[in-house]
Amino acid sequence: MDASLTLAARPLEDETGDALDALSALVADDMERVNATIVERMASDVPMIPVLAGHLIQSGGKRLRPILTLAAAGLNGYNGPNHIKLATAVEFIHTATLLHDDVVDNSDLRRGKKAAHMIWGNPASVLVGDFLYSRSFQLMVEADSVAILGVLANASAVIAEGEVLQLSAAKNLETSEETYLKVISAKTAALFAAAAEVGAMAANASPEKVKALADYGRAIGVAFQLVDDALDYDGSAQTLGKNAGDDFREGKITLPVILAYARGAADERLFWQRVASEGRQRDEDFAAAVDLIRLRDAIEDTLARAATYADAAKDALVVFEDGPYKRALVALADFCVSRAY
Amino acid sequence: MDASLTLAARPLEDETGDALDALSALVADDMERVNATIVERMASDVPMIPVLAGHLIQSGGKRLRPILTLAAAGLNGYNGPNHIKLATAVEFIHTATLLHDDVVDNSDLRRGKKAAHMIWGNPASVLVGDFLYSRSFQLMVEADSVAILGVLANASAVIAEGEVLQLSAAKNLETSEETYLKVISAKTAALFAAAAEVGAMAANASPEKVKALADYGRAIGVAFQLVDDALDYDGSAQTLGKNAGDDFREGKITLPVILAYARGAADERLFWQRVASEGRQRDEDFAAAVDLIRLRDAIEDTLARAATYADAAKDALVVFEDGPYKRALVALADFCVSRAY
Repeated sequence: MDASLTLAARPLEDETGDALDALSALVADDMERVNATIVERMASDVPMIPVLAGHLIQSGGKRLRPILTLAAAGLNGYNGPNHIKLATAVEFIHTATLLHDDVVDNSDLRRGKKAAHMIWGNPASVLVGDFLYSRSFQLMVEADSVAILGVLANASAVIAEGEVLQLSAAKNLETSEETYLKVISAKTAALFAAAAEVGAMAANASPEKVKALADYGRAIGVAFQLVDDALDYDGSAQTLGKNAGDDFREGKITLPVILAYARGAADERLFWQRVASEGRQRDEDFAAAVDLIRLRDAIEDTLARAATYADAAKDALVVFEDGPYKRALVALADFCVSRAY
Repeated sequence: MDASLTLAARPLEDETGDALDALSALVADDMERVNATIVERMASDVPMIPVLAGHLIQSGGKRLRPILTLAAAGLNGYNGPNHIKLATAVEFIHTATLLHDDVVDNSDLRRGKKAAHMIWGNPASVLVGDFLYSRSFQLMVEADSVAILGVLANASAVIAEGEVLQLSAAKNLETSEETYLKVISAKTAALFAAAAEVGAMAANASPEKVKALADYGRAIGVAFQLVDDALDYDGSAQTLGKNAGDDFREGKITLPVILAYARGAADERLFWQRVASEGRQRDEDFAAAVDLIRLRDAIEDTLARAATYADAAKDALVVFEDGPYKRALVALADFCVSRAY
């Protein structure tokens, strides 16, 4: 890929810099109810639970996943109360996985703040994650649909499988692009897909529309994770809310590394083997890794793949009439990629 | 308490040494189907998952919790397939909590084998626990009852709360007996209660009978944990399947310690403060702790409390007609206490 995509993509920033804002505005009232439900349902007689959970939940993530649930419900004209509970459940599942991920990866920053396990320890993060997981199922039970419960239970199992697969592939430079896509489809895209799907199900949308929203969510989930993995070699801690280079230091084999290694000359491969497979890293290695990734066009090509998934997401929405929700969801697909520029 | 209870209790060993065997025999066919379902449902394309989960699940725990589900269904004359799925779900929830507990407590033995996290690491144990948790909800979804899902989702949340409460109380010798009972009611008895309750619900038992079995399960759960905590100061690694003294080394404040500390003279209290609150332990301290706990009758009194819970469990069964299931459940209540002798 040449630089033209990068150049073509740049203007998107102006067009869709407020893409997330447009969607956020559409679901603003609902999101306020979700935030209230989050606070209400993370309460516990055990004081450490709301303190630890609140540290992460209140630190202002983008709430992309619950927004998807609310938007999918809105797109299908839903008026009942269940999408609020389901959006909260989705955010709790996401928060539980973040708490466990930070323990698994031993990350020290999350959303620009000290990670919870660095303050309260690994045991508390594991157990409060378990609590939020259970709370999410309690919320789903209140929404009173076994079918919806099934979708989110399946997504949870797939997420855990994806995380274990990622762990198994850690430090292995021979990881194929296919395996990498399997990991991110499972650990990230499955929840995006389920979030959108259950919003549509709550609204009693037709099977065709439910599937369209699941497909949309899955595709932007893959795009989102591809961009995240690219930013780890290209972003600042400020835009990332975590340290650039975290994946590198943890020996995570993401697409930029897979491409740079596959395309690298013998000396580059020796470099990657030392820093990623053997985990012998010096301070200056991250800068060298960024240079090699640039040399091999690995960021651009990772982002190009993200763009194709964003396109697929937009295509999935073809079954819906034009309207403010549809337009905002289209813009969100663009935003998932444009945030990299 | 004097020695008479100990003496009175000893003969129980002969009467009910096969108490668990009687119940196990009644549900043997069902349990074979549960074991097959366990193997089938812990399968995954990610090889590490069945390997790690199987290490723990196949190591032959007593399967007390799924036995309760099967027995509660049998006691109410159930003939459908759902109790098999629910019993499997209950065992998966239990296994997930064990995997996470061993990480939280940094235990090195479980069921007489090396704990999973000592072989595959903490990250894998956390994530495979999450997987089993999700799988349990998938199994419940198949049983197709939101009410049953609610009972097990509630139990899961209560378990996690209990674990966090226990973590908060760690090393605190001023922990009251009330707080201790709250911890074990949550972390252990809630799942025993839910296991029995959902078996009755699957069988469409009357609300009165469903409640009776929940009460029965909760009471034997408390009795079971009291005995477990007593055995940690009195058992061998062989009878425990873990090391005696694990609780002691982790600074867990269980009832034997609470009683010994509350009743101890000034020098005993200094000892407990050093070894439990400050965590400064020497090799010979565990033997000294056992001596002090004996001196203050703390094992006998812990077991006496267990006996009252076992009695309450039996009382809860009064709503059921006499029959093989009821007799076996009565014997199980006795067994939960008699296994200490």
